[in-house]
Amino acid sequence: MHIVKVSLGDRSYDIEIGADLSGTGARIAGLGFGQKMAVVTNPTVKKLYGRRVLDSLKAAGFRVMSIEVPDGEQYKNLDWANAVYTALLTNGFDRKSALVALGGGVIGDLTGFAAATFMRGVPFVQVPTTLLAMVDSSVGGKTGVNHPMAKNMIGAFYQPKKVLMDLTVLASLSREEFLSGMAEVIKYGIIRDEAFFDYLGANRERILAQDPEALGHIIRRSCEIKAEVVAADEREGGLRAILNFGHTIGHAIETAENYTMRHGYAVAIGMVLASRLAHRTGLCDPSVPDRVEELVRAYGLPAGLTALSRKPSIAGLMDTMQVDKKAEGGRITFVLPKKIGEVTVTKEWDEGALRALLG
Amino acid sequence: MHIVKVSLGDRSYDIEIGADLSGTGARIAGLGFGQKMAVVTNPTVKKLYGRRVLDSLKAAGFRVMSIEVPDGEQYKNLDWANAVYTALLTNGFDRKSALVALGGGVIGDLTGFAAATFMRGVPFVQVPTTLLAMVDSSVGGKTGVNHPMAKNMIGAFYQPKKVLMDLTVLASLSREEFLSGMAEVIKYGIIRDEAFFDYLGANRERILAQDPEALGHIIRRSCEIKAEVVAADEREGGLRAILNFGHTIGHAIETAENYTMRHGYAVAIGMVLASRLAHRTGLCDPSVPDRVEELVRAYGLPAGLTALSRKPSIAGLMDTMQVDKKAEGGRITFVLPKKIGEVTVTKEWDEGALRALLG
Repeated sequence: MHIVKVSLGDRSYDIEIGADLSGTGARIAGLGFGQKMAVVTNPTVKKLYGRRVLDSLKAAGFRVMSIEVPDGEQYKNLDWANAVYTALLTNGFDRKSALVALGGGVIGDLTGFAAATFMRGVPFVQVPTTLLAMVDSSVGGKTGVNHPMAKNMIGAFYQPKKVLMDLTVLASLSREEFLSGMAEVIKYGIIRDEAFFDYLGANRERILAQDPEALGHIIRRSCEIKAEVVAADEREGGLRAILNFGHTIGHAIETAENYTMRHGYAVAIGMVLASRLAHRTGLCDPSVPDRVEELVRAYGLPAGLTALSRKPSIAGLMDTMQVDKKAEGGRITFVLPKKIGEVTVTKEWDEGALRALLG
Repeated sequence: MHIVKVSLGDRSYDIEIGADLSGTGARIAGLGFGQKMAVVTNPTVKKLYGRRVLDSLKAAGFRVMSIEVPDGEQYKNLDWANAVYTALLTNGFDRKSALVALGGGVIGDLTGFAAATFMRGVPFVQVPTTLLAMVDSSVGGKTGVNHPMAKNMIGAFYQPKKVLMDLTVLASLSREEFLSGMAEVIKYGIIRDEAFFDYLGANRERILAQDPEALGHIIRRSCEIKAEVVAADEREGGLRAILNFGHTIGHAIETAENYTMRHGYAVAIGMVLASRLAHRTGLCDPSVPDRVEELVRAYGLPAGLTALSRKPSIAGLMDTMQVDKKAEGGRITFVLPKKIGEVTVTKEWDEGALRALLG
């Protein structure tokens, strides 16, 4: 097992990589939680892993209930957050009662938001079961739900007390789900670590075959980079914005596709287009977008808007990006690469180039 | 004008007491907000003060909209928080856009919660228009909405950037609304300052006549005590719990009365009963509850359960208190006076005495 520390003063916590699910109870027994605990999960994940996690929590002395949220991004909303509150109140939960998020990003974000806002904050633990959640959403304290008008508009910065990752669960993911997570892994190489980017190119076969050592390495390195960025800027006042590389266009694509495209796929396209925009804005040489596109394609991820179910309108994409949280004062902020391993956050970009790329 | 500082590191802010509404714009112009701003208020308050506040914000260069929430505690819920999000999204608000809460506790709590959770946090300013909101809910960062099963169950700790109090608005309050706020003022004397408690007894006439000097003094002293307690314990890990004096029983009474009784009235009864419980538990001599009851009655506030519309059931009150956020591990925590000016937070209290007091 490997531990990555997220250093945030009295909100610091450990990410335990390689923590088998049946040890969940023992791993959180010392954190000072109350006796009552709710495992929030979805029916798919519950069927696969619910028993192991619930039994281990019971064995550690917790009084455990489970709360099921239907499987899908469309349930990451205020109504389902309210359903969680109701279940907690019905079962007499108090301020020390803890929540465990067992699932992917939807479960993690929703559970984190419920934990952040139930009685103004109760402790929670992330137990991510997808690659995407392991390398991205379970780490760093961004919690929230969607608003019908735009994604992730309602939320809070709220850190978990621990993140537990059992890598063997990744074997149950579909290839598409796994690749969706790989897009975020590739992102870390582009924004922060060229050697890691090269590792991903050189070890494609082993990674796609989920070789335990390679898998452990890429998850660990992704978490290290995310932890480092979050520790430097928890509430996204500056540096943390680099984690949004590929996400500005990516979110607009998700919206255009009515959230039917996987997050990582949309981010993959967003990363390629943002890299092209960086080149056309004069921030980097053309090898940067070429290398990004090459790695994205090597992993079988989409690299252009032709992957969408229908051609999106430029105006629609631009509008969504403007509503995006990062568009302060109406001007869209982009994260653009200067080279592989280094990005800049800027409002200075070539509008004509962007429109050409989206057209 | 008098300024009380709330010291919370990078979340510190000023409470400006005696800040006329028409200066609102100038007072917040330097805080670094974006240009867009929403004043959240209710129809009653808007009619009285909306124009003055909106004009002053416009004169300071803000692009201002107003969002109206119906008047009443029953609208302090997740649906109305969502209505605020929708209005903000429809009008293209971003992370730097600010909210202004213009109204009493319902508006302040709801607006603060919306500010805490919209895009994971946007800046907000409190402009309380009731005595209760001035001395209590607008200061200290407790924000939230009610759940159908219990009050204030959904929320966040989130500090305003400034609190502006124009004391002349208090003249428009009904006597009942004013007295409701006085219950919280009396609370500060009991929990922290015997001299202030005595001042309230000696200056009853001037205070009830809203003599500006007396009014300024009691609001200032109340805010000073609250600021001091909040600065020492922002998230209610310890000391802050003393602010709940009178509120454990008070909340149960509000629930039993289906929120038709004014908050301060319920707290007044709660303070008297908690003081009696303290005496019967052996924490203080009988003069303490007698003096509390005498002052509560002197201000025309209710001092016993006979003031309720119908006799509540002991079991119902106990159940509600157990669901209350402060009931960790099932045992109700009470704030009980040891003398006037000093309270203790304890789970050690005489159950038989409590049942007798509620029966």
